Amino acid sequence: MGKIIVSANTRFLFSASSETTQWAEEKFHEGVQKYPPAFREKNCNKDLLDKIEAWAQKQHADGISDMIVIGMGGSSLGAKALESVIRHEQIGREKTFLHFWEGSHPTAIAQVLHQLENRKVAALFVSKSGTTLESRTMLALFRQFFPESRVTFVTSHPEKIKDIQNEGEETFLIPENLGGRYSVISPVGLLPAAFLNGNIRTLVGHYYQAIDKLEAEIPFAENPAKKMALSYYKLFTSGFHTNVLWSYSREFHPFMDWIVQLWAESLGKNELVRALPVPAKGPEDQHSVLQYYMSCANEFIHTFFHVDTYGAYSIPVPEYPVISSGKSLWRILHSQMKSIEMALDKKDRPVIEFIASAPNIESLGKQMAFWMWLVTYLAALYGVNPYDQPGVELGKVICKEILSEDKIPENLSAAFEL
Amino acid sequence: MGKIIVSANTRFLFSASSETTQWAEEKFHEGVQKYPPAFREKNCNKDLLDKIEAWAQKQHADGISDMIVIGMGGSSLGAKALESVIRHEQIGREKTFLHFWEGSHPTAIAQVLHQLENRKVAALFVSKSGTTLESRTMLALFRQFFPESRVTFVTSHPEKIKDIQNEGEETFLIPENLGGRYSVISPVGLLPAAFLNGNIRTLVGHYYQAIDKLEAEIPFAENPAKKMALSYYKLFTSGFHTNVLWSYSREFHPFMDWIVQLWAESLGKNELVRALPVPAKGPEDQHSVLQYYMSCANEFIHTFFHVDTYGAYSIPVPEYPVISSGKSLWRILHSQMKSIEMALDKKDRPVIEFIASAPNIESLGKQMAFWMWLVTYLAALYGVNPYDQPGVELGKVICKEILSEDKIPENLSAAFEL
Repeated sequence: MGKIIVSANTRFLFSASSETTQWAEEKFHEGVQKYPPAFREKNCNKDLLDKIEAWAQKQHADGISDMIVIGMGGSSLGAKALESVIRHEQIGREKTFLHFWEGSHPTAIAQVLHQLENRKVAALFVSKSGTTLESRTMLALFRQFFPESRVTFVTSHPEKIKDIQNEGEETFLIPENLGGRYSVISPVGLLPAAFLNGNIRTLVGHYYQAIDKLEAEIPFAENPAKKMALSYYKLFTSGFHTNVLWSYSREFHPFMDWIVQLWAESLGKNELVRALPVPAKGPEDQHSVLQYYMSCANEFIHTFFHVDTYGAYSIPVPEYPVISSGKSLWRILHSQMKSIEMALDKKDRPVIEFIASAPNIESLGKQMAFWMWLVTYLAALYGVNPYDQPGVELGKVICKEILSEDKIPENLSAAFEL
Repeated sequence: MGKIIVSANTRFLFSASSETTQWAEEKFHEGVQKYPPAFREKNCNKDLLDKIEAWAQKQHADGISDMIVIGMGGSSLGAKALESVIRHEQIGREKTFLHFWEGSHPTAIAQVLHQLENRKVAALFVSKSGTTLESRTMLALFRQFFPESRVTFVTSHPEKIKDIQNEGEETFLIPENLGGRYSVISPVGLLPAAFLNGNIRTLVGHYYQAIDKLEAEIPFAENPAKKMALSYYKLFTSGFHTNVLWSYSREFHPFMDWIVQLWAESLGKNELVRALPVPAKGPEDQHSVLQYYMSCANEFIHTFFHVDTYGAYSIPVPEYPVISSGKSLWRILHSQMKSIEMALDKKDRPVIEFIASAPNIESLGKQMAFWMWLVTYLAALYGVNPYDQPGVELGKVICKEILSEDKIPENLSAAFEL
């Protein structure tokens, strides 16, 4: 599955006394008992996988080249992370395409509508509750612009979508207890992956295997998710308040966004949690935010992701007046990451590195399992519920109020004219 | 140009006593005198603009449809921000395309190479120093894959690119004193904008006009950049440590990344500066990080960006079982933003809102001028140099060392196998 390595100055924070370990184990068991992790239930059985593959084959047989995924947050981020690694090996051979309709961005919608002229299109409506405002809005537009096209529904509440479903349209279920951000290994992520011809059996297999290896019953000493949770917890309770998640593999950039949601919504529950996740893209962000992290207060943990090999994609750089001549692009990327790690390390900033074997679906499945457990264990240490998101309800209520009124209230007052 | 509005709980922080104002004015003048802002020099005269437009016309006349922009950070972020708004009005009528080669990502390069088969391609090599590692590497690849194609160079050091330049290839200059992140209104941003048929004269005109209105000589009372700098400074020195920059206009998302670099590299100079910029995308990130901001400690300032109109692109939502029926997409987007602002406000989180008139080049030019001045004035209050980036040098030195050696050093040690 890969490994985790850490900088010298961080190492001491990774060693735990037996007393601390004991305390952590108790918290882990308490947490898992109080908030049972639904993601470890193996709902994706052979029947479901057969049904999903049959669905994908039907779309392909019907000549559908483009699937519009209508969904927000947990309904889209997992599919995007999967798309990114599935695409890695399909360059130049892509036959089917996903389009994500998330926010109500006029230009984005207009752009997709234009692109899809003269193509055969279907939609996947993904909403656990069945009532998500943005998603219903997008579906209304889809029905208008593609009146003849079919929609497949993914929800926990088939009764709530009756009013927007046409006769004969298929529904896949999200298990009721499986929260959106933990739902990627369910029809939510597997339908889009299968549509792209990703190997969903391999994905599910590696995911379940990793889930089992990190179960609450596996003791601390043999459980890297528990170890990593305690290590992060110790860092966050000793003055660090932000986790910068650097991805040095472009295929994993969308996976970082997935982690950010998983982490922020699961842990962000009260004032005692000070552990903001911030994504960063390497090497690009070396040329933007790195200056800040190198020079400002030592309050940031830096977590790096990269892959061990690009196989056939490792493109060599030709002889040229550059120091990188003769090296592969992967080697250059890796050297850049290492140099930033070393520079941060020299300034005593904690550095943690995750190594995945390759930018493929096997690695991603394992990583997803790992992060679901890690975040669950971290929540247990903080004593918070990793599966709800009460903080966002207020905004939704206000939004419905505003939309049902005639005008948008002016809650803010003028400061300056520009 | 638009306006800035603030939440009730933030308002008191926006009012300054005459004593504070006096102190701030002295700091502003001191800062600007010690570190003269090169961005206010009007280098883009008629001759240069003529030359840039002639260059773009020549590319078009030669049938070049695709321009690969080779550059990192300040050499690409401005062009991306411009591309995004220029595209807004060209949907379905795009004739020329930009591709950004930044990091050494094998898959990304392979993807562009595949896309560009059978198309007429040229490159724009943008490097202020002329020696940027990533950019020279990308250029080596470009020369290999497109041996017959022409490269245009943009640099402050024409003597440093002689070894990579072919005979007859054109060079445009970046003024030596104009730092990368302040260089968008120079050939760095204007060549790509002109290639896309953006109106660079309008852009430059609005930018210079806004620059003049915010000059150090314009007193505090009439200078929104000064007012805003002092307001942010007061917030950051009263316990807030992060500025969350929410863009609710997809056209301005890349502009947020531009601000992040401008802000982080200009201000991130020492441990006394605690003002991390973090970009957020609305409404998407309502479904990811918002839970954290609503429930965790009140340490984050929320700055919102939206546009006042989408004109013809404001797509109405048809009658449908949704609360948004009959509203326009812009109205929905706006209501979502307002609801989040109101929810944050109810929990006493500081909210600041920027309103641009439309997602077009006029607004962007003005906003860019505003943020350059704002960051410059903020730097003056902190007493730091907004134009250098000493913190990133160490990483560059280490990277060259690593690349010249045979193997990558193992600086980190194993923590856990996964």
